[in-house]
Amino acid sequence: MNDIIIAVDIMGGDKAPIEIAKGAIAGAKENGVKLLLCGAESEIKNAIEQFDGKNVVADTIFTDVFMTMEDSPMFVMKEKVESSMSKAVTALKNGEAHAVVSPGNTGALFTAASLTVRRIKGIRRAALGAVLPLEKPFLLLDSGANPSALPENLEQFALLGSIYVEKVLGISNPKVGLLNNGTEETKGNELCLATLPLLKELPINFIGNCEGRDLPCGVVDVAVCDGFTGNVTVKLIEGMGVFFKKKLNTMFYASPITKLSGLLVKPELKKLKKSIDHREFGGAPFLGIAKPVIKAHGSSDARSIETCIKQAKLYYQSNVAEIISENQK
Amino acid sequence: MNDIIIAVDIMGGDKAPIEIAKGAIAGAKENGVKLLLCGAESEIKNAIEQFDGKNVVADTIFTDVFMTMEDSPMFVMKEKVESSMSKAVTALKNGEAHAVVSPGNTGALFTAASLTVRRIKGIRRAALGAVLPLEKPFLLLDSGANPSALPENLEQFALLGSIYVEKVLGISNPKVGLLNNGTEETKGNELCLATLPLLKELPINFIGNCEGRDLPCGVVDVAVCDGFTGNVTVKLIEGMGVFFKKKLNTMFYASPITKLSGLLVKPELKKLKKSIDHREFGGAPFLGIAKPVIKAHGSSDARSIETCIKQAKLYYQSNVAEIISENQK
Repeated sequence: MNDIIIAVDIMGGDKAPIEIAKGAIAGAKENGVKLLLCGAESEIKNAIEQFDGKNVVADTIFTDVFMTMEDSPMFVMKEKVESSMSKAVTALKNGEAHAVVSPGNTGALFTAASLTVRRIKGIRRAALGAVLPLEKPFLLLDSGANPSALPENLEQFALLGSIYVEKVLGISNPKVGLLNNGTEETKGNELCLATLPLLKELPINFIGNCEGRDLPCGVVDVAVCDGFTGNVTVKLIEGMGVFFKKKLNTMFYASPITKLSGLLVKPELKKLKKSIDHREFGGAPFLGIAKPVIKAHGSSDARSIETCIKQAKLYYQSNVAEIISENQK
Repeated sequence: MNDIIIAVDIMGGDKAPIEIAKGAIAGAKENGVKLLLCGAESEIKNAIEQFDGKNVVADTIFTDVFMTMEDSPMFVMKEKVESSMSKAVTALKNGEAHAVVSPGNTGALFTAASLTVRRIKGIRRAALGAVLPLEKPFLLLDSGANPSALPENLEQFALLGSIYVEKVLGISNPKVGLLNNGTEETKGNELCLATLPLLKELPINFIGNCEGRDLPCGVVDVAVCDGFTGNVTVKLIEGMGVFFKKKLNTMFYASPITKLSGLLVKPELKKLKKSIDHREFGGAPFLGIAKPVIKAHGSSDARSIETCIKQAKLYYQSNVAEIISENQK
């Protein structure tokens, strides 16, 4: 059997390059895949040496051009076509890698994926999926690629999301909900009202409208919405997690007595923090793109990149693109 | 000085009528206002007796017709014009009361307020405000009245919200943000892109776009959005609060040791739970309606109704409607 090769842009994200390379190497070892590392020569060589990566790094692409968070997304196709991100995506297109992981500029990665790898035939818009923790992990899409969307786009997102969750997260017959301002069928803005009948006709387990309050408690496995609503939702969940962790710390560090209390619940506290930690469930898959591209969180550390490598492997093995292509016929 | 009279529909909400009446009487005593209680005769008489309300209940309207949560909003104007909710709002219109508090059917209360009391002159749409706790209380509007909105509507919501927060929550020069999918000025769906320049021209402390992650940490005092986004946001914050509380309970009830830990942080835990409890900050004001109408949460208990009475009093005293009218000239 040929190796699965995952291209990693080690120059993106707040903790680039060292944490990214470290996580990629650890993830490759753990999941039996090989890496194509893209980035600065010295950083890559240093990481391979430091983290003992020679057995898992199948190839390297050296470049001194990197996309920054401030770069306009189109730079990746023009001014910075030599960047580590662009190189990683081009390697995917050319079959030199089977999936891409990058913690860099989201808009740029989405642009590169859309214009270089392109969408699955029949898919009009690709969506950014976000896998969120809480009561149980669920996929929210579109979490930000398309601030405006048409009912037909949400219809395709529902199908893409359902297949991804079934194949990659391993949830059989996943429950798909339309994120709305009420559960009744009469509720919704124009987009939701026009989307509901389309979702009812899909070959998925569509459970109807769901509300903001349903998301944390595991009512759906896939929540579908436009990218504006999805972006606000994902960032709010993230912000609530940060808020809550801060409050927990304040509570347990208030006095010697509360510190003792914290010690007594240490394992439970760890579990609780995990349930609100976005890093536990890997990155955001681009759904609708013909080959697997995973956007790791900008604040990813080695642990989150490790998870993304596993996710990229499963995404590749799942044949989501082929299944969707079949569904589009 | 004449008494401030607050009309309370004691028949709405999950805990009607006894908790509503109890909270109203307690709130009236605490805040030096009088009540006009609307509802079933026996329930009102019983509550006045049980909670020693004779000195604060200025008047009563007895009726055996009540709006239910399932009733179509328009019922309040037609089939159920004799309902306690309709009677309370009519009393406000006629000057028999200075404000209304009801935990009943939101759509119906909004319909009654809009069609009976009417909007402030010049205001094209009224908004449902939600006062949310977290790092520090902030107002989110529209939290659900208008699933679709125009830039001119959001412009008026920003002004209404800024004045309300200054006058009722007592925050001087409140920071107003436009809830968006990014802080950069180029970010947004069509509505946000068209609204941003309008907000910049208003005589308010507009700080630009804000994101979902900014809401829990006190970045803004007023967040402006359409009613669809607002509804998803408010319900998500509520759902996250429920989720956290459940997780905290699970953590502290896991074993005798964790129970002991819970005892050690009891006061801090109470504070933490308070910061995610919607009941602490009263109900949702209808902003843009010519007189104060407060929608108490459907799950309100006596404590939350008590807070709503104080809020209604402040709302009435604030002259928000007059100030807005001035601003519209």
